[in-house]
Amino acid sequence: MDKNIQHLRDIDDLSADNIHDIISRADKFSADLAQKNDVSHLHRGKVGLSFFIENSTRTRISFEMAALRLGINMIHWDSANSSLSKGESFEDTIETLAVLAPDILIMRHNEYNAPRSVARFMGCPVVNGGDSYRAHPTQALLDLLTIQQAKGDVSKLKIAICGDIAHSRVARSNATLLDKLGAELHMVAPEYLMPQDVGYKNAAAFTSLDEGIKGCDVVMMLRLQKERMSQGLITSDQAYFKEFGLTHARLKHAKPDAIIMHPGPMNRGVEIDDAVADDPVRSMIRRQVANGVPTRMAVLDWLLEQNKG
Amino acid sequence: MDKNIQHLRDIDDLSADNIHDIISRADKFSADLAQKNDVSHLHRGKVGLSFFIENSTRTRISFEMAALRLGINMIHWDSANSSLSKGESFEDTIETLAVLAPDILIMRHNEYNAPRSVARFMGCPVVNGGDSYRAHPTQALLDLLTIQQAKGDVSKLKIAICGDIAHSRVARSNATLLDKLGAELHMVAPEYLMPQDVGYKNAAAFTSLDEGIKGCDVVMMLRLQKERMSQGLITSDQAYFKEFGLTHARLKHAKPDAIIMHPGPMNRGVEIDDAVADDPVRSMIRRQVANGVPTRMAVLDWLLEQNKG
Amino acid sequence: MDKNIQHLRDIDDLSADNIHDIISRADKFSADLAQKNDVSHLHRGKVGLSFFIENSTRTRISFEMAALRLGINMIHWDSANSSLSKGESFEDTIETLAVLAPDILIMRHNEYNAPRSVARFMGCPVVNGGDSYRAHPTQALLDLLTIQQAKGDVSKLKIAICGDIAHSRVARSNATLLDKLGAELHMVAPEYLMPQDVGYKNAAAFTSLDEGIKGCDVVMMLRLQKERMSQGLITSDQAYFKEFGLTHARLKHAKPDAIIMHPGPMNRGVEIDDAVADDPVRSMIRRQVANGVPTRMAVLDWLLEQNKG
Repeated sequence: MDKNIQHLRDIDDLSADNIHDIISRADKFSADLAQKNDVSHLHRGKVGLSFFIENSTRTRISFEMAALRLGINMIHWDSANSSLSKGESFEDTIETLAVLAPDILIMRHNEYNAPRSVARFMGCPVVNGGDSYRAHPTQALLDLLTIQQAKGDVSKLKIAICGDIAHSRVARSNATLLDKLGAELHMVAPEYLMPQDVGYKNAAAFTSLDEGIKGCDVVMMLRLQKERMSQGLITSDQAYFKEFGLTHARLKHAKPDAIIMHPGPMNRGVEIDDAVADDPVRSMIRRQVANGVPTRMAVLDWLLEQNKG
Repeated sequence: MDKNIQHLRDIDDLSADNIHDIISRADKFSADLAQKNDVSHLHRGKVGLSFFIENSTRTRISFEMAALRLGINMIHWDSANSSLSKGESFEDTIETLAVLAPDILIMRHNEYNAPRSVARFMGCPVVNGGDSYRAHPTQALLDLLTIQQAKGDVSKLKIAICGDIAHSRVARSNATLLDKLGAELHMVAPEYLMPQDVGYKNAAAFTSLDEGIKGCDVVMMLRLQKERMSQGLITSDQAYFKEFGLTHARLKHAKPDAIIMHPGPMNRGVEIDDAVADDPVRSMIRRQVANGVPTRMAVLDWLLEQNKG
Repeated sequence: MDKNIQHLRDIDDLSADNIHDIISRADKFSADLAQKNDVSHLHRGKVGLSFFIENSTRTRISFEMAALRLGINMIHWDSANSSLSKGESFEDTIETLAVLAPDILIMRHNEYNAPRSVARFMGCPVVNGGDSYRAHPTQALLDLLTIQQAKGDVSKLKIAICGDIAHSRVARSNATLLDKLGAELHMVAPEYLMPQDVGYKNAAAFTSLDEGIKGCDVVMMLRLQKERMSQGLITSDQAYFKEFGLTHARLKHAKPDAIIMHPGPMNRGVEIDDAVADDPVRSMIRRQVANGVPTRMAVLDWLLEQNKG
């Protein structure tokens, strides 16, 4: 297959210029949506394929809305029991995806780096809608759009990513993206949720939430992957909230105008207090969700343009 | 959210003028479909979202066909276990629906008055595709179209709604609609299936089928919600048929040219006899199903026009 | 319903001229896809309905891609438990399909000859996407396209259909089609997998694979329906492979430039060896899958044109 196809398998597929290009498209599409401008002529006649091995109604529907707004029709391949580990047989499945010859493939998979394996077979751009605990690049892009809309140039910001970093693809993609644009990063997690190999070159690591968010412009909380509790790492929701839940009292350590983010869905009362989640001025959580559609429109639009004839 | 959005949460959202407007559009779309006129330019580029908590393939597909005929693409959110009773967490789900920013939301829900709760969050019209045992307004509208096509102005007609009124949202929406247009209504049910609070102001109540349909122009039979039988209210299909099943013999009590209706799916041999259901002249049951698509086209078209910029 | 509607219920619906017409369209659409020509204006605004009682993601998605490429939107009716044997009640379901008034119906059903039963109710063309063990006409057409692209005029070819003929709708539809065009046919199966009533008038029957493929231009292998093994007909994968699996050694009996085909999904190491399946020159198996979309586009395009006003 064509080695020159531009994909979005993870943030590493994008240069800083590419990122600025995508975010500027996302900002424009965001305005189009607000003004109910119809832009479905842009890619009318195109057909996308969504291949979701791991279930995620929200992400799938957000991509579908983005596609339809651009005039792209989507076909869904929901495969409950397909697996990269089946070897040749999985290759036969991917072969089938490839010969369907969609204009774009959006995939979500529970296995590490699956989009890279699949992209080798495809004659079209592949978009990663989340794989394993590794990458979720469109979430990182919509978070960036949200930060820029609220705070401007990220290279001048101090940003804390807080909570269950070990199991979070959102944390990985966000850290890679923000680092690439020169933000100052604080990775903040209790010791047992801090990955060993945290190698984000310009990031400082903190095990105390109060310390970690000190002086930050952005406090990004992560969803606690609650299955950890059954492994004895965390004894209860209450215990975690006491140790690492964001409250207005704690938020005083950040800058007075720091914004609050969360990729959703939230465990209210676990990693975040209701009052913080619903703070009408400082919480950007609704805005993040709202930015999902225009950001995914931007990604689809940019990829289709990069790969044009 | 904008309080001026026109919804179709139930029949109360419509004035008599609105109803006549919708029915006249439905009549026109019905002719377009018969002549295979393509009207997909009317709303090309629009995207609707269907949110069906209670499963109903027929209603969902009827809405989807209506939408596609108008050029509206549909996204399906099938959520098996979402619930209004989950409180905040359900609000977060509705928030997600809202920020997807569809042009129209079609929903079906097993909880009482769910469309009203949801509409408060949405920036687009909400169409009720059936909620609990309360309302099914598009069914009432397609029934009205069917009656008008066969019998003309309903304000001059005597109409019997017969059978399991207690558990029927179809009965409720039909009675509200027909009453609003000045029809003379007979509510006909065995005592144990007649709601206590039947407050349809201009309706007369009957517990005998023969009495209830006397002199009527329209005999509308309801589906027996058979789960009642296990509660000892009804001993068997045969017993119910004997008491309240419509046969040609019984139909003699109605006007000689009375039409027969049923919202489907029918329990043949329970509330209606095969010979009546398939009566080639008087049964309107196939026509009712056929009127589903043009009536829903009319509802979508009218709502999108009411809510235009 | 209109008796003059052209359907594709099985190959018998097509004359030799019809077949050539469809294949020539398929060839053209195949080129359009390769050159990324947008042909979605051809049937923009049309709506198709897919009614799949028997699950088949691959076939359904191949039809959906074909439809969308032509500008036809598809609605899916997935019914797990509808049945022809339910009699009247199934007729009520088909009635519902009919009054939805799609422009085309694509159906797959596990019961014998279901498309013929359904077509009697429909006001639009019906396409058989596979029924029981009887017919799979679009598979036969895409196989024909593949053979013609590789070998030219089939009336000059000797073609072997090999393996589990007894349980294969692919074998039936292919044999009927190829016979109609004057190919010389070899039906090759172990005795216990050769149907009693093999009545393909111009076909020779063989129970030895080596004998059956002798001098053939095309060797078409069939998927072994493995549930036979539990009935004691076949003792193991290995035993079947030894008896009837295609290897390069065996292939020496065919013409030196014979092509290899398989409708997929393959049981590798059962009816076909990996090396044969992946033979870069002689295996047409990937090409068959790739021909699925343009062939189904040709079928839809041709049927819609035949049934125009």
